[in-house]
Amino acid sequence: MLNFPIIVLNFKAYSEAVGEKCVKLAEYAEEVSREYGMSIVVAPPVTMLSRIANSVSIPVFAQHVDPHLPGSWTGSITVEMIKEAGAAGSLINHSEKRMILSDISIVIKRLREEKLVSLLCTDTVETTRAGAGLSPDMIAIEPPELIGTGIPVSKAKPEIVIGAVEAVKKINSSIHILCGAGISSGEDVGRAIELGTEGVLLASGYVKAKDPRLILSSMAESALKAWEKTQSSK
Amino acid sequence: MLNFPIIVLNFKAYSEAVGEKCVKLAEYAEEVSREYGMSIVVAPPVTMLSRIANSVSIPVFAQHVDPHLPGSWTGSITVEMIKEAGAAGSLINHSEKRMILSDISIVIKRLREEKLVSLLCTDTVETTRAGAGLSPDMIAIEPPELIGTGIPVSKAKPEIVIGAVEAVKKINSSIHILCGAGISSGEDVGRAIELGTEGVLLASGYVKAKDPRLILSSMAESALKAWEKTQSSK
Amino acid sequence: MLNFPIIVLNFKAYSEAVGEKCVKLAEYAEEVSREYGMSIVVAPPVTMLSRIANSVSIPVFAQHVDPHLPGSWTGSITVEMIKEAGAAGSLINHSEKRMILSDISIVIKRLREEKLVSLLCTDTVETTRAGAGLSPDMIAIEPPELIGTGIPVSKAKPEIVIGAVEAVKKINSSIHILCGAGISSGEDVGRAIELGTEGVLLASGYVKAKDPRLILSSMAESALKAWEKTQSSK
Amino acid sequence: MLNFPIIVLNFKAYSEAVGEKCVKLAEYAEEVSREYGMSIVVAPPVTMLSRIANSVSIPVFAQHVDPHLPGSWTGSITVEMIKEAGAAGSLINHSEKRMILSDISIVIKRLREEKLVSLLCTDTVETTRAGAGLSPDMIAIEPPELIGTGIPVSKAKPEIVIGAVEAVKKINSSIHILCGAGISSGEDVGRAIELGTEGVLLASGYVKAKDPRLILSSMAESALKAWEKTQSSK
Repeated sequence: MLNFPIIVLNFKAYSEAVGEKCVKLAEYAEEVSREYGMSIVVAPPVTMLSRIANSVSIPVFAQHVDPHLPGSWTGSITVEMIKEAGAAGSLINHSEKRMILSDISIVIKRLREEKLVSLLCTDTVETTRAGAGLSPDMIAIEPPELIGTGIPVSKAKPEIVIGAVEAVKKINSSIHILCGAGISSGEDVGRAIELGTEGVLLASGYVKAKDPRLILSSMAESALKAWEKTQSSK
Repeated sequence: MLNFPIIVLNFKAYSEAVGEKCVKLAEYAEEVSREYGMSIVVAPPVTMLSRIANSVSIPVFAQHVDPHLPGSWTGSITVEMIKEAGAAGSLINHSEKRMILSDISIVIKRLREEKLVSLLCTDTVETTRAGAGLSPDMIAIEPPELIGTGIPVSKAKPEIVIGAVEAVKKINSSIHILCGAGISSGEDVGRAIELGTEGVLLASGYVKAKDPRLILSSMAESALKAWEKTQSSK
Repeated sequence: MLNFPIIVLNFKAYSEAVGEKCVKLAEYAEEVSREYGMSIVVAPPVTMLSRIANSVSIPVFAQHVDPHLPGSWTGSITVEMIKEAGAAGSLINHSEKRMILSDISIVIKRLREEKLVSLLCTDTVETTRAGAGLSPDMIAIEPPELIGTGIPVSKAKPEIVIGAVEAVKKINSSIHILCGAGISSGEDVGRAIELGTEGVLLASGYVKAKDPRLILSSMAESALKAWEKTQSSK
Repeated sequence: MLNFPIIVLNFKAYSEAVGEKCVKLAEYAEEVSREYGMSIVVAPPVTMLSRIANSVSIPVFAQHVDPHLPGSWTGSITVEMIKEAGAAGSLINHSEKRMILSDISIVIKRLREEKLVSLLCTDTVETTRAGAGLSPDMIAIEPPELIGTGIPVSKAKPEIVIGAVEAVKKINSSIHILCGAGISSGEDVGRAIELGTEGVLLASGYVKAKDPRLILSSMAESALKAWEKTQSSK
């Protein structure tokens, strides 16, 4: 279902991420995805999940999912719930929603059983290596200290991105690796792909942009250009 | 908006609580609410919140809400989100989703600011007394060891219910007190009200019932009967 | 065992809080306590608890204790453990170690059963009111945003201190109320007592002071002076 | 410092794990260690750490350690604290004290920097593989559902132990792998080693035994016998 390179847009709990504004942000993403023929995923707040999944045809991810099976759990978000709401997958272990190791493992397995995509967030080369041992579909490495800063990880810490790419390839080369934190321009996205990643995970760089549609178009263009370059050089 | 006595139905993460089945459970509640002219609240999973709020005209509660303001929070459920989804209030601190004291306090305040109803769950006379100090709209005392057992708190631990009622009235008599855990029949509901509560919080007793509509009707009838008795004896 | 006014010194996990330096910090406190005939409590790291309790005769508190009974718990700190180590009580729910409401309630009860002193930390007038409902021996209100700033709560937010004092007296006048956050001089301590508290909780203001013994003497002196004043005016 | 095979004794928060009884349990372990010339580690409660480290010459581990550097943390247990108390290492992520992935990674690094031994607990082949990516000194796989049951993992789930051994060897063959859960006899220990592990982690099987010294002797004997067999067959 997913092609690469890929851009994953985390709407977080921003005020722009509820109601009509959220639908707009998802629709722009759909338009850019179509225009460039490129995979773009949106991750709206959980209360907007079904509405967004009904509004756009690009993949919609949850931002978090709990390890519980259906049952006597109050306030939990199960894999069954997000699937029923139309989600195609979920972020896991985002730096703003860390999980214990055993729960991460359970969630990845449960998503796989339900044919949903797992996108595990990690913060260092070591935790990326650990995460790779759990065989998620994708891993996004995001040094938390750069999140929301506008200082792109691909520029500030290229060695972490390169190290993560290498670590993943060594352990399980079928896992797709993205990077995130501080990504806010086409240039940042291009560089991320040149470092060996297959895409990016971003939030404020899209949601808080003056012209989200424009910035996303520029990101898609840069992503495809860099992708072509890296593929042809293989 | 809410009248008393009241029945609050927590759908938890039961397999019956997603999709069409969830809508049905909410619709039955709406029908019984109309038939008996009595407040019945449903608390579906967060992914179903907007759909249920659009399907029925009785109040819909979230099962949990986080203390965060809109912003850079991934996987969190804010008061703004549940409000936009159509919620009229939220459970707080359910025994399956305990919160730290300061977050409970923040959530109660934030719900009030947004004109949403707060229903705080507690487990003992002491935590009920503490909870009353935070001035939620409602408190439901539920000894966790009875949850899901079918052994009603109103029968097994009447002294806890009575103690909670007294504690609340002493600290802040405008708080409405409910009880929960093990409630599965009209008789259980009636007894809860005779002990001085203004309603009940239940989950499996409704969701897992063979005939949820029938059992809820019987609960509503018993509630009203017991209510009349206790009111007239005042 | 405890007299008022009281100064509680939280050593936190500062590098000064282990080994010989920790013993010195406790000994200074003991000296000042003797010199001024005033209650001073020290709360060293848990690994230093028994050593400090064996080194000084002033009361030694744990910084945190878990709600568990003795049993199959790995890495937990039980009330039995700190008692056996010689602790006279424990801080509970410090802003750097928040606990869920029901665990706070259990810990207060368990400390009481073991005849240990409970010192509950709160952050607002509301959580202080809630905390008072749990009947700890002492409550210390500390607005977390002032902790470690050197801006004393007694100066920056006197209305919170006054509100907390009033709230506690209303709910349970046998609870002793302290305040904390930003306290770093005798003047700060004096002012805290003039606002109606019975003492202070501080950390860096003592541990990180150039001359901890000197600053503590000045605090004790100011505390006693302010105490006399407030008592005589009653 | 550590030789293999190894037996790690987790004293948990059992009532036998404080005061004189705890010292006795550590002394028995020291005696058996000497008698059999075999590595035996004890992990007492954190309040007993320094006392036990001063009482016996075998390695003493903490049961848990937090990721924080020395600083403004209340109630935390830092690597510096346990080192100063005399610990030679620490359990990490026990099923009764789970940690988020990034904290596990930090703790392993910080223990290594302080030349302390890291013993990571895992629960499945997947989390063992993930854990191996973090390069702890040792990993103990313990299916939580067998802990405290007396049903030894080495008998009930040999495939998990074998799978964990293989996973670790593939990722980082310098990591020592142990197993735990339900181990209560010499036979259990022997079988664990025959499955390819280099030792065991146990708690109630030792602490709650009628004659802990006797059972530990039998475990040491079986361990060495099985070890010899597996080594000679290599």
